[in-house]
Amino acid sequence: MTNKQSTIVYTLTDEAPALATYSLLPIIRTFTDAAGIDVTLSDISLAGRVLAAFPDRLTDEQRVADGLAELGKLTQDPHANIIKLPNISASVPQLRACIKELQSQGYQVPDLPDDPKTDEEKAIRDTYSKILGSAVNPVLRQGNSDRRAPAAVKAFARKYPHSMGEWCKASRSHADYMNGGDFFSSEQSITSDKAQTVRIEFIGKDGKPQLKKELPLQKDEVLDSMFMDAAALERFFERTLRECKDTGVMWSLHVKATMMKVSHPIVFGHAVKVFYKEVFDKYGKLFEELGVNPNNGMNSVLEKIKTLPQSTQEEIEEAIHDCYEHRPEMAMVDSVKGITNLHVPSDVIVDASMPAMIRNSGKMWGRDGKLKDTKAVMPESTYARIYQEVINFCKTNGAFDPRTMGSVSNVGLMAMKAEEYGSHDKTFEMTEDGTMRVVSEAGDVLMQHEVHKGDIWRACQTKDAAIRDWVKLAVNRARNSGTPAVFWLDEERAHDNELRKKVETYLQEHDLNGLSIHIMGYNEAIRFSMERMKRGKDTISVTGNVLRDYLTDLFPIMELGTSAKMLSIVPMLAGGGMYETGAGGSAPKHVQQLMEENHLRWDSLGEFLALAVSLEELGIKEGNDRAKLLAKCLDKATEQLLDNGKSPSRRAGELDNRGSHFYLAMYWAKELAAQTDDAELADHFAPLAKTLADNEETIVNELNAVQGKSAGVQGYYHADPAQLEKVMRPSATLNQTLAKLNG
Amino acid sequence: MTNKQSTIVYTLTDEAPALATYSLLPIIRTFTDAAGIDVTLSDISLAGRVLAAFPDRLTDEQRVADGLAELGKLTQDPHANIIKLPNISASVPQLRACIKELQSQGYQVPDLPDDPKTDEEKAIRDTYSKILGSAVNPVLRQGNSDRRAPAAVKAFARKYPHSMGEWCKASRSHADYMNGGDFFSSEQSITSDKAQTVRIEFIGKDGKPQLKKELPLQKDEVLDSMFMDAAALERFFERTLRECKDTGVMWSLHVKATMMKVSHPIVFGHAVKVFYKEVFDKYGKLFEELGVNPNNGMNSVLEKIKTLPQSTQEEIEEAIHDCYEHRPEMAMVDSVKGITNLHVPSDVIVDASMPAMIRNSGKMWGRDGKLKDTKAVMPESTYARIYQEVINFCKTNGAFDPRTMGSVSNVGLMAMKAEEYGSHDKTFEMTEDGTMRVVSEAGDVLMQHEVHKGDIWRACQTKDAAIRDWVKLAVNRARNSGTPAVFWLDEERAHDNELRKKVETYLQEHDLNGLSIHIMGYNEAIRFSMERMKRGKDTISVTGNVLRDYLTDLFPIMELGTSAKMLSIVPMLAGGGMYETGAGGSAPKHVQQLMEENHLRWDSLGEFLALAVSLEELGIKEGNDRAKLLAKCLDKATEQLLDNGKSPSRRAGELDNRGSHFYLAMYWAKELAAQTDDAELADHFAPLAKTLADNEETIVNELNAVQGKSAGVQGYYHADPAQLEKVMRPSATLNQTLAKLNG
Repeated sequence: MTNKQSTIVYTLTDEAPALATYSLLPIIRTFTDAAGIDVTLSDISLAGRVLAAFPDRLTDEQRVADGLAELGKLTQDPHANIIKLPNISASVPQLRACIKELQSQGYQVPDLPDDPKTDEEKAIRDTYSKILGSAVNPVLRQGNSDRRAPAAVKAFARKYPHSMGEWCKASRSHADYMNGGDFFSSEQSITSDKAQTVRIEFIGKDGKPQLKKELPLQKDEVLDSMFMDAAALERFFERTLRECKDTGVMWSLHVKATMMKVSHPIVFGHAVKVFYKEVFDKYGKLFEELGVNPNNGMNSVLEKIKTLPQSTQEEIEEAIHDCYEHRPEMAMVDSVKGITNLHVPSDVIVDASMPAMIRNSGKMWGRDGKLKDTKAVMPESTYARIYQEVINFCKTNGAFDPRTMGSVSNVGLMAMKAEEYGSHDKTFEMTEDGTMRVVSEAGDVLMQHEVHKGDIWRACQTKDAAIRDWVKLAVNRARNSGTPAVFWLDEERAHDNELRKKVETYLQEHDLNGLSIHIMGYNEAIRFSMERMKRGKDTISVTGNVLRDYLTDLFPIMELGTSAKMLSIVPMLAGGGMYETGAGGSAPKHVQQLMEENHLRWDSLGEFLALAVSLEELGIKEGNDRAKLLAKCLDKATEQLLDNGKSPSRRAGELDNRGSHFYLAMYWAKELAAQTDDAELADHFAPLAKTLADNEETIVNELNAVQGKSAGVQGYYHADPAQLEKVMRPSATLNQTLAKLNG
Repeated sequence: MTNKQSTIVYTLTDEAPALATYSLLPIIRTFTDAAGIDVTLSDISLAGRVLAAFPDRLTDEQRVADGLAELGKLTQDPHANIIKLPNISASVPQLRACIKELQSQGYQVPDLPDDPKTDEEKAIRDTYSKILGSAVNPVLRQGNSDRRAPAAVKAFARKYPHSMGEWCKASRSHADYMNGGDFFSSEQSITSDKAQTVRIEFIGKDGKPQLKKELPLQKDEVLDSMFMDAAALERFFERTLRECKDTGVMWSLHVKATMMKVSHPIVFGHAVKVFYKEVFDKYGKLFEELGVNPNNGMNSVLEKIKTLPQSTQEEIEEAIHDCYEHRPEMAMVDSVKGITNLHVPSDVIVDASMPAMIRNSGKMWGRDGKLKDTKAVMPESTYARIYQEVINFCKTNGAFDPRTMGSVSNVGLMAMKAEEYGSHDKTFEMTEDGTMRVVSEAGDVLMQHEVHKGDIWRACQTKDAAIRDWVKLAVNRARNSGTPAVFWLDEERAHDNELRKKVETYLQEHDLNGLSIHIMGYNEAIRFSMERMKRGKDTISVTGNVLRDYLTDLFPIMELGTSAKMLSIVPMLAGGGMYETGAGGSAPKHVQQLMEENHLRWDSLGEFLALAVSLEELGIKEGNDRAKLLAKCLDKATEQLLDNGKSPSRRAGELDNRGSHFYLAMYWAKELAAQTDDAELADHFAPLAKTLADNEETIVNELNAVQGKSAGVQGYYHADPAQLEKVMRPSATLNQTLAKLNG
């Protein structure tokens, strides 16, 4: 309808969100086309990233562009406008499965070496390590984070509240964490007064400094160092197990092995070794020979021993069962399948598992399939304390009520790999006793820790520009929302005290008149926010990177029943914007259902919300009024969709993701046809609105008719696009209607 | 030594403190005499007050002066200097026992009528009602309250910490309170803009206002009204019992039937009727005929049914036991004797029972004599919430450590019968449904509540002068101690919002430069104080009257192991001062031990501390340097006494209260002889110091020799003074030494 002037990049990711894209993107393009906006697709799926990493091993036809690298460049462009869907933060088993699938499709990508020995193997391992875990977000999140519940979603949750388990004052559930020996208690922090390259060094028995890493620092950059005492960690696990045994409270472990991909698997491994101490004492040597890594969980033990003679396997399995006899009951991931908390490191992810536990009256599932009070073990105390505050609050005041509770939004310090989430390449598991230290360019020792073999030492960086932008974003959000903003900075943390100085300075760059801006320690901040929330009042949490992650699950899950419905905006430092569409959640289950029953229950609400903000901001930045109008009408369409119950059902044969997309298109077209700001645009969409409305029954029937039998999709990580398009667009009537308008 | 110029009034009270007075007062006089101070004795004992109330029924010889009335007048004298020892807040059973004892001694005081019918009986009942409960403090406390841990006592507690039970995060103990229907949720509050007499009226079915009470208000006086919904209260009790039964957590009730002598016995009575519902359903009529009043506890039921035939008694006892079958376990006052929480209303007093529970790891004693997690039921939520905060804090952070914890002192709004503690004559149990209202002199309805039969309605007054003085006292304490002061004023309370306005105004009358003064809600205030306390920092709590009472038990019991060692000063509005000597605590047990074993384990530390402040303030006010010197040397003597372990032992045959007095005298004399500020005074006390030191062994032997057999004291409430003097001063050597100096 108009010449293309601007571009929105839409990401092709994995699992359910990727499937949904095949249905939704053609609809989106039908609308954006009218505003001169090109929506391009960028493949950042796990399979895509694996393929892009090994071009030399592929045929010309097989080679793909490196979508992630291209997007990484784009983040530096002030015109960048990226809609980012949830993607897989691949664990080792997931990566292996993906590789296997690609190989079966004829792609000669290499295996992930277990124990790399040759230079080639090591190079392969290094390449894959950049694909493992949370590999996409650090590249794309070139800005701080602005997350909040969209008004429509909050209103919907108030009207149709999700279930919330009641809380009892006699509940025994609690959060437990180390009272010393953890990262929190050893944290040191400095601010570099100039640009310089510092050295991370280890001094062992021989007294000679070994260079672990050279680290370029910007002027005014904050650098922290800290370590987790492995012996203290194991004592802590032992204490928590003993207490659970004594009190009869179930034991559960909550870490973040995906995001904290270097340090947390090690922490998890210690838990495995302590819980199954007798097994590792007895079979440690054998396990070593087998290549068992406790950091990969008991599942890896069970897998590895399959190569042993049956009798040895049985012996080991008996030893494992003996542990259950004298250990407390452990929380289960799946009690039917016998999958415990210690089975796989990525099964229990603290920022999702703790809110789930809190929604479940503080209970988790026991071996007998019953919900039980639990000790939630989170070794690192830094952020774990906030969960104990929430538990105390719920015990005292009862569960939060989604019908009346206020909202806690977040402005998170995320830019430039801030804080712990950028620490992976500066994290070291000590191989001998000695001293870890950070030495300035001039040779001064800036920070220093005495460490022992097995301790986990790490450094974290936070760039001044990121902090300054974060403060600005917080002030803007406080101003635009008329809501009090609380900087979560704890006086007991060295890092936070460095940040606090900067925050106090940078706040002075803004007009704070009429704003309510606070600085509080974590305990005080969460209590303050909960007291307000309980009374229906909103609060902005202005936090560091990890708390951003935790709180934008915790509060949304209590408020909305899910964090997937949050608006998640990354106003990038370079001026562009990224619009994220919520968490993946139970996406794997959705794919399975599509494959078996051709029903996709994935809810694209996050995509609708992100697209609306993407369009709105594009409209403002590029002076594109039609984009703004599209955004406004899309928000109205989303509201109608929610109000009319046109979200996907869980059951095959009923409206699914595809049907929900149809309704969005229908409502969106209707709104555009009805608006009076732009007559030409109204005229353009009037026929579409009419055709879709007239054919509602036909289209829905076409969409639902295919359900109930296998979708015939081949491949989980890398299915054939043509096949997926066919599966995801089964309504000929809808396809033709859209094609007509585009024509 | 000098002419008497000034007077300290020392009170003769009841039980152990009264016994101790017979030993301590002669020693005190030996010292004060040297500073020209007369220490007079004023009898405000329960027996003394009973005798003073019925002069017409006594012979001329039997008649006594009304000590309390005289002291009441003295509080208006700017020269007043009163040392007030703990006295009995008599429950009905205690008053009955006292009357019986007096009658047995030939005093024709009347019985307390159960159910007064004639005018004479009603008059007797009215007279006794003024003696019942907390009758002394409201007369004497003509000022606000300044309570703190003396430096010597705090230092001693840090050095020799008392035991503190550990806390476990899995503890099920908690505080429970009403979430509606209580005084808190119905509170209304106004400030009278002029002096006027308002009317408290009830309007029943006939629509005609009945005058319940005329209430003169001063200009700017705050008046509150509120009610407890009896039906909601019974539902609440039923819920707490059901929850305990469901969760297996022990049930306990914590009220303050002594101090809240009108409303809390009624609340207690509802608990009795709900717990033993089936018993009261079945035997209610019979009980009524017998004159059973559930407000007096199950003990009164058991007493009253003794008049019934054996078979009926057994039937009722069986019905009581049936209740135990389907009710949860109840906390015991004495598991050996089978005395439950519901036996006697005054057995469990919230401000002592809750700190005891907190020191006991959140546990109370069960029927089997074991410590168990418990639901601490405190129906009125206003102040109960703070205990839940403490419990949450202890669960999360572990028990407080007396060796390192900071101190929370208190400035309490107590003057002029402030708040709830002055509400007894404005408290009404509704006898029918209707409206309670407060009407201004001009006829305007100021406050109004819809009430039902059984509801407890009350009004509370707080005088402007008292508030203004309280603010001044808080600022002075903050200034003199260099400690942050927190006004505990809750935004959710109507009363506190009225007070807050005044506090903000009156704070402006003072130089606040360099002071740290906060205003916080209760939850925030206690959390703030505990966070500081945990880190060894001190805080002043500036609170209303009830919180004053609660907190000056709670914090001292955690910090010092007892509240009896606190400095408790009442700087009176008229300019005088009253110096209280700590709580009575387990005084009855002490008397029993004296009677049986002639060993008095009462610790007079509170008297020593109060006397020192009394002397110091007298010295300042009257320009009496010797008084100041006496005070200084007394504090040093007290420190030595603590450091040398010369406090009373619990066991007969070892140092007791009397021996401790001897050591105080010895150390005090030594300090006075050693000081160089006043040579004449040093010379005066040198011989005493020498004689006491020389005869230490003899005197201690004489004091201990009498122990181990019955003291032969006749009478608990009104023993013969001559006999008591003989018992309490058994050392001829000590008596002669003191007499010589006085001579």
